[in-house]
Amino acid sequence: MEGVDHLSHERRNAQFDVDEMKIIWAGSRHAFEVSDRMSRLVANDPVFRKDNRVQLGRKELFKNTLRKAAYAWKRIIELKLSEEEAGRLRFFVDEPAYTDLHWGMFVPFLKGQGSDEQLQKWMPLAYKMQIIGCYAQTELGHGSNVQGLETTATFDQRTDEFIIHSPTLTSSKWWPGGLGKVSTHAVVFARLITDGQDYGVHGFLVQIRSLDDHSILPGITIGDIGMKFGNAAYNTMDNGVMQFDHVRIPRNQMLMRFSQVTREGKYVQSDVPRQLVYGTMVFVRKTIVVDASNALSRAVCIATRYSAVRRQFGSQNGDVETQVIDYKTQQSRLFPLLASAYAFRFVGEWLQWLYTDVTQRLAANDFSTLPEAHACTAGLKSITTAATADGIEECRKLCGGHGYLCSSGLPELFAVYVPACTYEGDNIVLLLQVARILMKTVAQLASGKKPVGTISYMGRAQHLLECSSNVQKAEDWLKPSVVLEAFEARATRMSVSCAKKLSKFTNQEEGFQELSPSLVEAAVAHCQLIVVSKFIEKLQGDIPGKGVKDQLQKLCGIYALYTLHKHLGDFLSTSTITPKQASLADDLLRSLYSQVRPNAIALVDAFNYTDHYLGSILGRYDGNVYPNLYEAAWKDPLNDSATPDGYHEYIKPLLKQQLRNARL
Amino acid sequence: MEGVDHLSHERRNAQFDVDEMKIIWAGSRHAFEVSDRMSRLVANDPVFRKDNRVQLGRKELFKNTLRKAAYAWKRIIELKLSEEEAGRLRFFVDEPAYTDLHWGMFVPFLKGQGSDEQLQKWMPLAYKMQIIGCYAQTELGHGSNVQGLETTATFDQRTDEFIIHSPTLTSSKWWPGGLGKVSTHAVVFARLITDGQDYGVHGFLVQIRSLDDHSILPGITIGDIGMKFGNAAYNTMDNGVMQFDHVRIPRNQMLMRFSQVTREGKYVQSDVPRQLVYGTMVFVRKTIVVDASNALSRAVCIATRYSAVRRQFGSQNGDVETQVIDYKTQQSRLFPLLASAYAFRFVGEWLQWLYTDVTQRLAANDFSTLPEAHACTAGLKSITTAATADGIEECRKLCGGHGYLCSSGLPELFAVYVPACTYEGDNIVLLLQVARILMKTVAQLASGKKPVGTISYMGRAQHLLECSSNVQKAEDWLKPSVVLEAFEARATRMSVSCAKKLSKFTNQEEGFQELSPSLVEAAVAHCQLIVVSKFIEKLQGDIPGKGVKDQLQKLCGIYALYTLHKHLGDFLSTSTITPKQASLADDLLRSLYSQVRPNAIALVDAFNYTDHYLGSILGRYDGNVYPNLYEAAWKDPLNDSATPDGYHEYIKPLLKQQLRNARL
Repeated sequence: MEGVDHLSHERRNAQFDVDEMKIIWAGSRHAFEVSDRMSRLVANDPVFRKDNRVQLGRKELFKNTLRKAAYAWKRIIELKLSEEEAGRLRFFVDEPAYTDLHWGMFVPFLKGQGSDEQLQKWMPLAYKMQIIGCYAQTELGHGSNVQGLETTATFDQRTDEFIIHSPTLTSSKWWPGGLGKVSTHAVVFARLITDGQDYGVHGFLVQIRSLDDHSILPGITIGDIGMKFGNAAYNTMDNGVMQFDHVRIPRNQMLMRFSQVTREGKYVQSDVPRQLVYGTMVFVRKTIVVDASNALSRAVCIATRYSAVRRQFGSQNGDVETQVIDYKTQQSRLFPLLASAYAFRFVGEWLQWLYTDVTQRLAANDFSTLPEAHACTAGLKSITTAATADGIEECRKLCGGHGYLCSSGLPELFAVYVPACTYEGDNIVLLLQVARILMKTVAQLASGKKPVGTISYMGRAQHLLECSSNVQKAEDWLKPSVVLEAFEARATRMSVSCAKKLSKFTNQEEGFQELSPSLVEAAVAHCQLIVVSKFIEKLQGDIPGKGVKDQLQKLCGIYALYTLHKHLGDFLSTSTITPKQASLADDLLRSLYSQVRPNAIALVDAFNYTDHYLGSILGRYDGNVYPNLYEAAWKDPLNDSATPDGYHEYIKPLLKQQLRNARL
Repeated sequence: MEGVDHLSHERRNAQFDVDEMKIIWAGSRHAFEVSDRMSRLVANDPVFRKDNRVQLGRKELFKNTLRKAAYAWKRIIELKLSEEEAGRLRFFVDEPAYTDLHWGMFVPFLKGQGSDEQLQKWMPLAYKMQIIGCYAQTELGHGSNVQGLETTATFDQRTDEFIIHSPTLTSSKWWPGGLGKVSTHAVVFARLITDGQDYGVHGFLVQIRSLDDHSILPGITIGDIGMKFGNAAYNTMDNGVMQFDHVRIPRNQMLMRFSQVTREGKYVQSDVPRQLVYGTMVFVRKTIVVDASNALSRAVCIATRYSAVRRQFGSQNGDVETQVIDYKTQQSRLFPLLASAYAFRFVGEWLQWLYTDVTQRLAANDFSTLPEAHACTAGLKSITTAATADGIEECRKLCGGHGYLCSSGLPELFAVYVPACTYEGDNIVLLLQVARILMKTVAQLASGKKPVGTISYMGRAQHLLECSSNVQKAEDWLKPSVVLEAFEARATRMSVSCAKKLSKFTNQEEGFQELSPSLVEAAVAHCQLIVVSKFIEKLQGDIPGKGVKDQLQKLCGIYALYTLHKHLGDFLSTSTITPKQASLADDLLRSLYSQVRPNAIALVDAFNYTDHYLGSILGRYDGNVYPNLYEAAWKDPLNDSATPDGYHEYIKPLLKQQLRNARL
């Protein structure tokens, strides 16, 4: 049956141009072509195979990752790949490794925080990987509260050095990826102390391993922090622990772009605006949102294809059974996730624009949009990662029992994805940051201050507090303006309601704490509005290709109305819509599911994932699931012999009633 | 710091008698004492240590499980443990093993389906483990649709044998635990064919391995199906695949309690009522609900203790930071799960009563309550397992980054738990069964037929469709009658609304399919009502111990009002309550969180879990988290040497720019 496409009838039924949709998904023809080329390059190279990694012990697994990382770098050099191509290649290798931190955190951070002199010295080394760096911020005792970090960097004027020190157990650096076994250098965050005064947390470049023999430098203790969630998953990464015992570094290894310590030990701020730091944050979180759409689309692709292959019940007189994708319960769980994958894609694309915009403004010393942009990326990071983590697990459940097998690819995808809800800002902490800016905006409405960017709709608060939806039949919910107003009204009303309750507290901070669960909900409402509105904006642009725009409009409708259904309490309790209107929305939603159904396989084909990248037997492009599941099973080490290790010691004596004398 | 109780101040603050609560949680003083004794027995025996298992490769892991299973059986014999004690001991060993299937499925099923003659022959062997059995139902191509199984058992009158055969790849048995490497016998489900006629799926006892040397018997192919989700987790189990090539078994190994094939090949039903089968199903699902409360309480115990240990933010002038359990966002996520653990405990306890009741009725040929009892256990299985799976992951997130470490215990708890959402009836399929009986009940209301058991409230449908809640202040939501009526009205209205929509379809089955997502929601509403009502019933009984009842009342309120908040759309769209009343419920909920806060640690201490059973550094009884996290890290195999395996091949050439010539 190899070579047969079991899903060809599904593909024939598609009502739109899949190739054009691939371009839309990739963002541009160029981006599509680079991704397509790099993904095939990886898929066709046996060094990058990954179907065996869940069976490897930690050491073997890690060694294999080192090999892939080195080999990828070798290929990047040999093929003279551009930075963009190299990034895509690493992406499709699809295995967390120290290089992620080197390229994704160490290099950008050095670039952003180093003085010109420092860049000149260190960047060439980093770019050629003559040094390998990691990002050592989090400590055993402090994660979210960065200002509470305990590691100290005390200036010693006598020797013109900083003394890096871990004063407590909880000050041990803990979590940095690439630290445990590989990095030669680290950006270490520590409290800068000079002249007896604590100037708060700053970054320092510290060499941690010898460039000769890789031994750990004197005064430093480093180890790996041990196994993490899941098979393979992040266990390919050497997340590390590090302690310093009065380790000395030259003064000029403090990262000096924003502030410096002089030879005399004086702390001086530079005239570079500190707000530039936020630019980097916008960048990192934009990447996380795009990653959410990657991970979710991958899970959705697996679950959709398998739902078309799997048949269960519904057979009459020996006919074939019903494809599970035809069950409404399956559709009502799967298609909202498909729609979310597209929604997150487009909001990620928009964040790319936002990042460019913010960067240009910063260059022109315009900081006016920064707080809003910062809150917006924080909030979007939070809701997209939370929905993606839940969505992957839902896709696994949608695959029934077989989704529990590692060969389905879903367990590892989940385990490797979930940290996104915690790193780069815990999701709840981030939503509270969004809530703060929402509360500030509401408070300033009276003063006539116009809100900017994604909060600008609140400028129409008066209208949004009073308006009522004029949906009268299900199809009215197809109108973008109707959907948008409902989401704007809901978000505004929830924020204003919180603000009113808040105003009754004499101590605002106490009130904020007390009301924080409601504030989180208001922030979610705001962020969901952003996703809906950016999806709608995308559809207002030019979208070529037969049927492409039509499909996207349906997905946009599904995302919006599913979100409305899921958060119906919000919409009804704020009287934004009536129960009758909610019921009409449900009717339309059901109809949209039916309309998307014949296009479902093509809509996931548009992600253009290779079978290598998907890493799932259930999600195979050709749908030839069962023979491959069967074959994969036999590769488990337990099947090396028919009789298991331990039979003679632990099974035979039991069956033979000879346990009494057995040595166990 | 060993020996110091870092949580002693929390324990001193408790406002109730923890020892009495332990009895309530265990169900009786006797149950508490047995559990307490067995858990200590396991915890104090080094053979049962489990802190190293996530690092083991599959073979080593499996061998270690074989050892523990044999050793546990040896101890059971040596100590002459009762069946109850043996069951608890296996429970606290806390490692999925073939013995689970032998004792939990094979033995009960044989007992339930075998004829007296068969029991006489096989039960003594099974009880002494002279044979080890598994339960081979699920196939590669069929799970939920048991009637679609493809394996055949064809009677051959010539030799008085059944021929067991796997006619297709998809008919391969797939998933049975204990099959892959250990079991000597299996209950095999196959289509009974005699005289050319297919009588549907029946159970057959098939020997699959030699009792001499454990070799697989001729004509049978058996293997392990490979790695499953998570570190260790279910990878200690040999879930298997099995194919038959015309394997012959004596006719008398068909399980003959309910039907038989005569020497002449005639299919005959016995006069034993087939409904007895449902009794077993009620039993198995009751166990699953109790297991849900076990798993959820374990996760909650870890997250609650760690939330009291972990401090972040809120420090002024160098004071200690705020315990994260004091943040309202943490409380609003954690305490509903704590309340759910207790709620599921009590509904499980009630299911035990239901099982006894059903068994007695069956013995008296009274089948009147069976459909309702069956639906009720199916629905409760579904909602408790779904909430528990989500709840464990939420607890992991509540532990921040450190929850992602295997040493937190939460990743493995999640991975080992989630199959409960799929096995013994996929959760969505089960809810649709509940929906069927709800629709039937509504349809029969007009005819005056009185609904029984947990659906009896629908007898008051007229009132429940019209009533309106008279909550006027937050405290009104403390009244059990008010809460109960709101949940009853919501459930009734959702069912009636579905029934109305259904009546518009000419083809009822088509309508049922089309409306299935709404039907699932109606079924959930019904099942949540059962949980709430059984919690309330529990509180109406005698509950001794200072402050115990008071705490449970608060938890009951939290479970009910949190559920109301989460499903607010249901309550508002059915006009069961007003937005204002919803807001009052939220106010009370916040106040309940504050009241529970000082008791939180004691409420999880009441589960009486040993540190061994919890298997979590974050959840340690003494709260001494950080030094133990630090120490555990060093045990990872990657820390065997400072320089990792692979340095010379894959890191050095990269740093030294010598990749071009490196062989990778």
